[in-house]
Amino acid sequence: MTTSIRAAATRASLTSGDIEHLTAGAAVLGCGGGGGPYIGGLIAANEIDDHGPVRLTQLKDLPDDAFVIPVEAIGAPTVSVEKLHDVDCLLRVIDMVATHYNRAPTHISPVEIGGVNSTLPIAAAARLGLPLVDGDGIGRAFPELQMCLPNLFWIPASPMSLADETGNTVLVDATSARWAERLARSIAVDMGCSAALSMYSMTGRQARECLACGNLSLAVSIVRTIADARAGSGDPSEALAHTLGGRIIHRGKVTDVIRRTECGFALGQALVEGTGQHASSNMSLHFQNENLMAMCDGVVVTTTPDMTIVVDAATAEPITTENLRYGQRVHVLTAPCDPRWHTVEGLAVVGPAYFGYDTPSLHWDGTESMGTEHISISDEQ
Amino acid sequence: MTTSIRAAATRASLTSGDIEHLTAGAAVLGCGGGGGPYIGGLIAANEIDDHGPVRLTQLKDLPDDAFVIPVEAIGAPTVSVEKLHDVDCLLRVIDMVATHYNRAPTHISPVEIGGVNSTLPIAAAARLGLPLVDGDGIGRAFPELQMCLPNLFWIPASPMSLADETGNTVLVDATSARWAERLARSIAVDMGCSAALSMYSMTGRQARECLACGNLSLAVSIVRTIADARAGSGDPSEALAHTLGGRIIHRGKVTDVIRRTECGFALGQALVEGTGQHASSNMSLHFQNENLMAMCDGVVVTTTPDMTIVVDAATAEPITTENLRYGQRVHVLTAPCDPRWHTVEGLAVVGPAYFGYDTPSLHWDGTESMGTEHISISDEQ
Repeated sequence: MTTSIRAAATRASLTSGDIEHLTAGAAVLGCGGGGGPYIGGLIAANEIDDHGPVRLTQLKDLPDDAFVIPVEAIGAPTVSVEKLHDVDCLLRVIDMVATHYNRAPTHISPVEIGGVNSTLPIAAAARLGLPLVDGDGIGRAFPELQMCLPNLFWIPASPMSLADETGNTVLVDATSARWAERLARSIAVDMGCSAALSMYSMTGRQARECLACGNLSLAVSIVRTIADARAGSGDPSEALAHTLGGRIIHRGKVTDVIRRTECGFALGQALVEGTGQHASSNMSLHFQNENLMAMCDGVVVTTTPDMTIVVDAATAEPITTENLRYGQRVHVLTAPCDPRWHTVEGLAVVGPAYFGYDTPSLHWDGTESMGTEHISISDEQ
Repeated sequence: MTTSIRAAATRASLTSGDIEHLTAGAAVLGCGGGGGPYIGGLIAANEIDDHGPVRLTQLKDLPDDAFVIPVEAIGAPTVSVEKLHDVDCLLRVIDMVATHYNRAPTHISPVEIGGVNSTLPIAAAARLGLPLVDGDGIGRAFPELQMCLPNLFWIPASPMSLADETGNTVLVDATSARWAERLARSIAVDMGCSAALSMYSMTGRQARECLACGNLSLAVSIVRTIADARAGSGDPSEALAHTLGGRIIHRGKVTDVIRRTECGFALGQALVEGTGQHASSNMSLHFQNENLMAMCDGVVVTTTPDMTIVVDAATAEPITTENLRYGQRVHVLTAPCDPRWHTVEGLAVVGPAYFGYDTPSLHWDGTESMGTEHISISDEQ
């Protein structure tokens, strides 16, 4: 279902003019995580200005033997607000993987959609003159590296490369995606809680099967939808919820934020006191880089893996978890994630139990996610 | 001075019969660190039994173009007592460095002298059928990876390779030895506080200049010295102090040990209440894997980089910091380290100030180490 909604928005390339829209849209899809979009957008726009627009390749158009190298930043979004990302580091981690395989990449891809991790792959693709895959490894943002669709499809996380702005590089060959996460997290903390990273390199055939489809295009179109609603008489948050196939679950004011940077993550919760039609209820949002669970008056109303998104009440502009502040008037939305996260394998990796929440996984509409289906891997693989 | 004492004991090879002596002697030179010697000795003896004695190459006999790969274990000695080392991991880290340079090693060497880190390189050399350099990177044991003579001589710490028993491997290219330490420590903690490591690979010419000379041979002969004293009427601790060119600074009973495993290190202090001729004074020993400072009744009597060694009062057998226990009757010895640690560059890296002790560096004999000389690097380099 998610895929069909998103396919309508397909684009052929990204110009620097698209970036402003894309960053805001990607911050929506990032569910509060993936790092602040503003600076990442400047970095991507700057590279496009210097090197020209970035071609987008749809998943269905990827040749079997394409060599796709995903790239992202790892660390705490709270840190990346102050310590800027460096395109040279992105190129270095891509080059480390390419050197390992002795093969140049044919395409770059995002590991996740969300703030800075949507825009950094654009910057890398622009600098390298390579097409960017209009697909990503999650379809939203998640806080840990094993929480990636390629992992469900048994694509190895290693070789995984990391680099920092001082010139340190690390090449990891981990026995599992969970081990890759564990090692990468410590290394990223050493590198100042923010580093460039590449992992899950794959063939075009593998990418077609496992990546989430069309979210870069969707990110750009989301913001146009919101702008149209604002220009007309519509409620931009309602328009956004409709575009994502979801709903608004709360309207209110942020009255408390508890946040700590721990083990390389931005952990915490925010309290949103209801206003207007929600005046009688209070919502608590629980996040680990991304929003993971929302409770209304002590009752769980939605959980990971479906999307929980906080937007400004007036403009429907997304608010990332590190930017939640006392006094903000917000709407809280839920929307469906890539349906493969609701399989047995998906819920084991990103369900509420993994994050320590003692609750069943709830869909965006409040129904229980049973995880009864299994991931199906095509015989082609 | 140190070098000339030690040169007298030169050996041509190590048999499995030598290992028992070597481990005890290396634990003496390890100044309480380097991991418990017993299990490492079994591992080395087992490999020699399977693959034959290990040839020792003296530093002076290393050809200019030899390719020396040092190998060791990194982690907390407290952990390595329970989680055994794996020779396969040692071979893997050596192979990673060799692959990086596309050159097979001609010699293996210890990174440091001390407990398990003296014996693991023997096991690796035996398995590989390669000669072992009778020299090491420190001349004693120190807790951090930048605390290595090659670092004073500007030999790069990277490429640095790590491996654990589950099959994870990491190759680090760090911008400095200090960065290598920082990254390796976190990775080692992830790997269960104990991992195989290789760093400071170098040519024969570099090894001749920077490594500490002859300590594997010395380690074997130390124990013979002690045994001779015990067989005769001599005091074995006195004989040991004499062999090392040092002195006994305290005799007493361990009455308290405060120990914690933190950031991958075994940190703590031990209180030794004086007995016999030292009955009127109490000594506190401060350690971070290795013994770093000794205070008598609140007055500093010796500090890093010179050696502080705790031995059993009756047998002069060394006691590593993780094996310090209430009730042990001990003698505390000091002895000179490799004199290059007393240069300006050496004290900056391993002087008491680095470890947070607010005291000047004191020689083994209580005189102040001024650090007025600089490391001299030959023009040959």
